[in-house]
Amino acid sequence: MADLVLHSRALSLYLRIATLVCEEKQINYRVAARDAPGEGFREFHPFEKMPVLQHGDLMIYETLAIADYVNRAFDGPALSPVAPQAHAEMLTWISLTNAYFFPTMMGGIAKPLLMAPLQGEPTDHDLVARSLPDLEKQIALLEASLKQSPYLVAGELSLADLFVLPNLFYASLTDEGTRALREAPKVQDWMKRLTSRPSFAATEQRP
Amino acid sequence: MADLVLHSRALSLYLRIATLVCEEKQINYRVAARDAPGEGFREFHPFEKMPVLQHGDLMIYETLAIADYVNRAFDGPALSPVAPQAHAEMLTWISLTNAYFFPTMMGGIAKPLLMAPLQGEPTDHDLVARSLPDLEKQIALLEASLKQSPYLVAGELSLADLFVLPNLFYASLTDEGTRALREAPKVQDWMKRLTSRPSFAATEQRP
Repeated sequence: MADLVLHSRALSLYLRIATLVCEEKQINYRVAARDAPGEGFREFHPFEKMPVLQHGDLMIYETLAIADYVNRAFDGPALSPVAPQAHAEMLTWISLTNAYFFPTMMGGIAKPLLMAPLQGEPTDHDLVARSLPDLEKQIALLEASLKQSPYLVAGELSLADLFVLPNLFYASLTDEGTRALREAPKVQDWMKRLTSRPSFAATEQRP
Repeated sequence: MADLVLHSRALSLYLRIATLVCEEKQINYRVAARDAPGEGFREFHPFEKMPVLQHGDLMIYETLAIADYVNRAFDGPALSPVAPQAHAEMLTWISLTNAYFFPTMMGGIAKPLLMAPLQGEPTDHDLVARSLPDLEKQIALLEASLKQSPYLVAGELSLADLFVLPNLFYASLTDEGTRALREAPKVQDWMKRLTSRPSFAATEQRP
């Protein structure tokens, strides 16, 4: 039995980030899906968010902290650069993911266009239209970075790539996302390389 | 002349966090106030947020990344624990600050009650009322942690304290904040100790 457990709803973007980190570290873990009513997160997270990592008696919440812990506490590939400038750049991308990419790519694009229809809810087309300029700006920022280097930070895979990837991937499954990516060939290359890694297939989520 | 420059509007909560970090590291820096129209942040930050740290040719944005860089790139007291569990706990508090404490303590309490009147705008009392239960829950979480230890992480001052402090301090200047703090003696002690440090006086902001 895995001694690392990720408690989460099964379809969580941040769960996918956390599992990508575990896969890339090549460590043993399991996901405890908590989707049923009453299986809430109050006992795990003070504000009932997910995922929460359990390692023995230790509980860690907030995905940045989970990713940092998994990367530091276990052997396996280093997913975080050591040099101060590169380390700060990694945290910049992670902060941008939480503050801008997730609200736009998931909240403004993937959720209304992919998840709402699946749940029999109407798509908020005004929200999508308002989100498109932000999506384009964010993809342009990624393109500018990936023109310099094959990964977002210091030329090597890091937590930065693993935070951005699922957000952009789900947005890319929409026509709007596909169109926005047309003028970003470096971002397309980066997505192809990252989604071809075993970690991506191993963390696939099906509604 | 200081070789570290923080570009920001002068009255920014996140600028105060960044300057607290610089003060605690005992490094030389200056603030370049960019409040005039046209002195925007487009040239510094892709989404025009502040502060942005300039160190020679290097520009770093997002306050977590700035704090991490200042802590790692310069001598002075370590503001970040090394052990994986403690380091992750520090990042949990910083994530909670960005995702919950700032929206509640500043957005829902200090801004409507303190800043809106200063700017001649009406206070949104519904917003304040909606924010109070969150404020109480957040203070209870801090109290539970500070019952165990005099600082938020590993018994020593860290970036976690410096991220939370200004948020709670501005909220505490309101009647609502004062009342919410009454049942949190450990949080009150912690605030007294932190606001007595030279770093706090050195970073005072006046409207």
